Order: sequence, then structure tokens, then C-alpha cells
Amino acid sequence: MHTKLFIPGPVDVREDVLEKMSTPQIGHRTKDASNLQRGISEKMQKLLYTKEMVLLSTSSGSGLMEGAIRSCTLKRAAVFSIGAFGKKWYNIGISNGVQVDLYEREMGQAMDPNMIDEALKTGKYDLITVTHNETSTGVANPLEEIAEVVKNYPDVIFCVDMVSSAGGHKIKVDELGIDIAITSAQKCLGLPAGIAVCTFSQKAIERAEKVENRGYYFDLLNLYKCILKRDYQYPSTPTLPHMFALDYQLDYILNVEGLENRFERHLQMANIVRNWAEDKFELFADKNHLSRTVTTIKNTRNISVADLNNELKKRGMMISNGYGDLKEKTFRIAHMADKQPQEIEELLDNINDILKI
Amino acid sequence: MHTKLFIPGPVDVREDVLEKMSTPQIGHRTKDASNLQRGISEKMQKLLYTKEMVLLSTSSGSGLMEGAIRSCTLKRAAVFSIGAFGKKWYNIGISNGVQVDLYEREMGQAMDPNMIDEALKTGKYDLITVTHNETSTGVANPLEEIAEVVKNYPDVIFCVDMVSSAGGHKIKVDELGIDIAITSAQKCLGLPAGIAVCTFSQKAIERAEKVENRGYYFDLLNLYKCILKRDYQYPSTPTLPHMFALDYQLDYILNVEGLENRFERHLQMANIVRNWAEDKFELFADKNHLSRTVTTIKNTRNISVADLNNELKKRGMMISNGYGDLKEKTFRIAHMADKQPQEIEELLDNINDILKI
Repeated sequence: MHTKLFIPGPVDVREDVLEKMSTPQIGHRTKDASNLQRGISEKMQKLLYTKEMVLLSTSSGSGLMEGAIRSCTLKRAAVFSIGAFGKKWYNIGISNGVQVDLYEREMGQAMDPNMIDEALKTGKYDLITVTHNETSTGVANPLEEIAEVVKNYPDVIFCVDMVSSAGGHKIKVDELGIDIAITSAQKCLGLPAGIAVCTFSQKAIERAEKVENRGYYFDLLNLYKCILKRDYQYPSTPTLPHMFALDYQLDYILNVEGLENRFERHLQMANIVRNWAEDKFELFADKNHLSRTVTTIKNTRNISVADLNNELKKRGMMISNGYGDLKEKTFRIAHMADKQPQEIEELLDNINDILKI
Repeated sequence: MHTKLFIPGPVDVREDVLEKMSTPQIGHRTKDASNLQRGISEKMQKLLYTKEMVLLSTSSGSGLMEGAIRSCTLKRAAVFSIGAFGKKWYNIGISNGVQVDLYEREMGQAMDPNMIDEALKTGKYDLITVTHNETSTGVANPLEEIAEVVKNYPDVIFCVDMVSSAGGHKIKVDELGIDIAITSAQKCLGLPAGIAVCTFSQKAIERAEKVENRGYYFDLLNLYKCILKRDYQYPSTPTLPHMFALDYQLDYILNVEGLENRFERHLQMANIVRNWAEDKFELFADKNHLSRTVTTIKNTRNISVADLNNELKKRGMMISNGYGDLKEKTFRIAHMADKQPQEIEELLDNINDILKI
């Protein structure tokens, strides 16, 4: 029996999308390969509301985070973290010898735009990173308010990890002035892991031109130049299965379900889980900044989350324990990608039944 | 109509292997994920004749080349190049600020082990890179002779790119004293591109411990420590579709076809192409060092390779033009992965027919 995944990635993938993973191979230096990869970039531009270049990477989103902070920090980067995935930016920077400072908020809280303003006022930073949707805590940062602050610092490259929200939460990348928006396949896009995507603004391109030691595989400038020169063909052989499936799924998202419907469905599923959590437990995250794709629930009943998950697995379902130190103190239910509200209801009914609540 | 690929990757993938790419997703932090990834590492150990650790990477082989040269060069690296993919090591080193020197041979020639000996005698280098099978020229380097030289320098980390030969040409990694052997899915292993594999010897681990600034995504030491701690689970979400397919294909290679039969079939296909090339054209590469997986043919008849390929495509087949400057001066026929000798014969019959030779 397949275990239905209610974890914040990998997500369940629709059968018709999975079938596209089995498409026979084509030469990666052919017109067909160019058309495929150009098409994906153009469709991703619609999904992310951007006219800037969209790059594809055979890697996880972490790889493109490395590419962003390494390729575009000339002076010093400021990482604004609200959880484990925020802190990852800092670790990536440090591992690459990038000059980087970490600004943190308590787990469960959103980033305070004033904290960003104060940091940027020092003039020390020419790149900042923000996590839009912090998968470890279920907090969605107030990107609009943060963007208002960042707009006052035109020399700063604005990088946003939207790995667990893009495709499930409307984010207008260009309007927000985001230079590098990063996402990955195995979250709201509803694909298997193995491909990551980022936008790369003209401003970011100009910055990267000045940065030395950008590395090779994740050198965003090199990827950009290569696809310009080779009509959307990349330096290395890409994961064609993910390309076939992503292209197909973007057609589905844009033309069959429709972006607005998709965002609405995600919010609807989030509301179901939030209401249940407030009824039976408590929400962990600041209520003003709840994620629309994953909900973190405070374990106020002191249940064994591990036992609950074992029981759920017997019924063909799986949720996530709390992340890191939050294990057993919280648990997480993801409501993303192509899950339907009735599947969320069914999960919650099963949890109620197991816990007899 | 599917175009049969006789290019040196991506290769055609058997239908049963492709089907495995469509396996439903599982949680990447589950026992099932551990078992899957441990199983692949253990099977790859058999294929590569090694007892050292095998790491998996969601990337192309270039990513692991970057990981190797960056994670394990403490003093200075020497790149021994016999073509485009040899030189790639140098570019990767330079892009990462690694101190690196390039030693080259003329295109079509194998590396001279004496050249390596002379370079290592200087005592300047603590890491070297060699390309086993140079895809741009169709030359297979004499790894045994090279290994005999390298064994005299116990402080040198020996990295070998065997991306286009592993699985098609027997390479006994441990016997040869190779510390980091790198390969990729879309060549002789017969999978779609999107996953790369490398060995990581105890000696390489100890070296990496001393190297700072190893980066993040391709920090081989970090990958190694993570899979030790988490029972073969990796820091980032891996490409599960490739894992399912690779695991299945390794069972096929080891238990259905058998390694020796697979190596023998590759040599048999190589011989068919070599004989044909000598009869109708000339071999480009040094005859003492011919690749068993791709043959480069000198265009002695001054045909238009582009036109030939266009005609072949009408018949549902595709070969490769010469690489870079060798375009139109040479062309390449790959005979790797799960192609059968009769398919090679069929291709050559069609070329004869098109060229009326």
C-alpha cells in the first residue's frame, strides 16, 4: 500500500505527472531539448510573476541557495532566519567563505522588517536572504512588508527561499523586487525532488559579473550565459525526466487548474488544518504569519507524535514530527501540491479517531 | 517516432527501467529511503570493485568533480587532460580558487604515465585528476599503467572521471588505488541523467578533514558524515525517481546480465564500430587506447556529418558530431548502456546506405 504523504516534501505526485518521468530520452543538445527547457522557464515566469530570467538546476533547492549567496555577494551578506531553513543560508555562506552575518528570530515568529531595516542601514551588506515559508515552524514571512524595506536599498541583492511556498502561495517576484527567488520541485509544484528553479534578475547578473570565485556547477552567471548562448541548453546534462514532468505539470497548473484556483485551494486546505489545530491543539506559529502550505501544531496534549505516525502509517498516511529540537513538542501537517481538501479532512478524521479526540 | 540515441549520453533507457522512474514518492527520512540508498551504494561497490564508501549526488557528474577537487586539494592539484572533459577538471578547479596546473596531450592521444610521474616528482601536488574515458576523442586512458605511477606517491589523492566508462568497462577501483572515482547515470549505467555517484576512500576522507572552504552541496566530507549519521540519508532531498530506477538497474546489471557479460557486450559493440570505421573511414584515436564505449571516427571522406545525422534522424537514429573544434572533422558513435550489437549493426547499415559506401 502506498503511504499518502502529508509531509512538507517530498509530496505525492499525480499519476499522470509520474508517467511523464518515464518519457524516453532525447539528446540534450537538440532543438527539442532547447524548446523543452525554454518552455519551462517561460511557464515558471508566469507562476512566479516575473519577466526576469528563470534558471533550472539538476539539484535540490539548497544548491541554488549556494549559487545565489556565492555568486552574488561582493561585500557581505545578511541572513534573516526564522528557523532551520533560514539558518541553512548562513551555513551555506560560511561553508563557502562568504562574509555573512546571521539575524535570527525566535522559532515560530516571523521576521521583523525593522530588524532588516536596522541591519541594512549599517551599509555593511550587499545581499540579503529571507525564507518566505519556513518549513520547520510553519511561518510565512511578510514578504510585502519586507520588500518595502529592501526597496530603499537599491544596491542590495534580495534573495528569497520560496522552496515550500511557490506554486501554492501567490508571490509576485518582480513587484516585490526579488532578485533571486528559489524553489524546488518536490513541494507545491507537485513533482518528485531532483530539480530546482530560480529567477535571476538583471541586477543580480550585473552583481555576479563583479564576483570572483563563483564556483562551477552553481555559478548562476555561467548558467545564464550558457543558456543565452545555447538557446536554453545547460552546461551539464540535465535531468530530462524532471524536465518532461515539470513542463507537463506547469501546463496543468497554468491552464487546467489555474493559478488563482491553486492558491485558493492551498488556503482552503490550510484553513481546514488551522481550524482543527485550534480546536484540538494549538497553533505553534504566530497567527498573523501562518504558512499556507504547512501547519505546525503545538503538542499541547502531550501525545507521542511517533506513535501517532505509526498508527497513521497502518492506515496509509504519514505526517511529520516537529523539526529538530521541536520534535515531539510539535508536529507538522503539510497541505501542498495536488492534495485535495477532502484528503486533508480524511487525514484529520483519522487522527481524531486514533487519538480519540 | 522515438529517435534511437547513439550519442555518448544521454543514452536510451530500457522501458522497464523508465517505468521505475514513475514509482510513487516516499518520505526521504524513512527507513525505506535509508534501505534504498544503502542498497544502491552497496551495489555500486560491486560494480566499481571497491570496499570504500559510495556517495550519491542529485546532480551531473560535473558536480562531483567539483566536490572532489575542492574538498580534497590542500596544496595543489595537477589535471592530466586528453580532451574536453579532462580540461573541465581544470576549469572547475580554477572556478573554485583551487591551485591547479594543467598537463595536456594532443587530442586523440592517451595520457603518458611518464608525464604524470615527472609532474608528481616535483612534490608540488597532493591531488591529481585523470579522465578514464575521454568522450570528446574516444580515447581510454591506460589506468593500470597510470595507477602504477601514482602508487609511488602515497600522499596524492587520485581522482578519476569514469563517467562514460563505468558499467561498460571493467575498472577495479581499489586495486588501482583510486580515491575518488566519479560516474554518472546517463552513460553506461543506462539511466536518465540526474544522478551522479562517486567513491570516497578513507584516504580522501582524511584529506578532506584538513581542507577548509569545501562548499556545501558538493562537500564530500559533509555528505559522508551525513550518511554515516543518518543511515544513508543525505542532507538535501534526493532525486528519488533516479534512486528507484538505479537500484532496479543495478540488480539487472549484477544479477541478470552479469558484469562480465556487460563488459564483454560493450567490447563486442566497440569492435563492430572499430572494424567498420577502419574499413570505411579511419579511427581518430590512438589504436592502443581506444574507448570501449564511444568511437571517434576521422571524417576522411569529407562527408557532411550534419547532413548524415539529418538523414539518420529521418530513419529514427542519431549519432554525434565531433566535439568542439573536431566538429565535422570527426564524428562519434556511442555503443554503451543497454544497446545490443545488432542495433549497432543496423545503425552502420543505415550509414552505409545513406552514404552509399
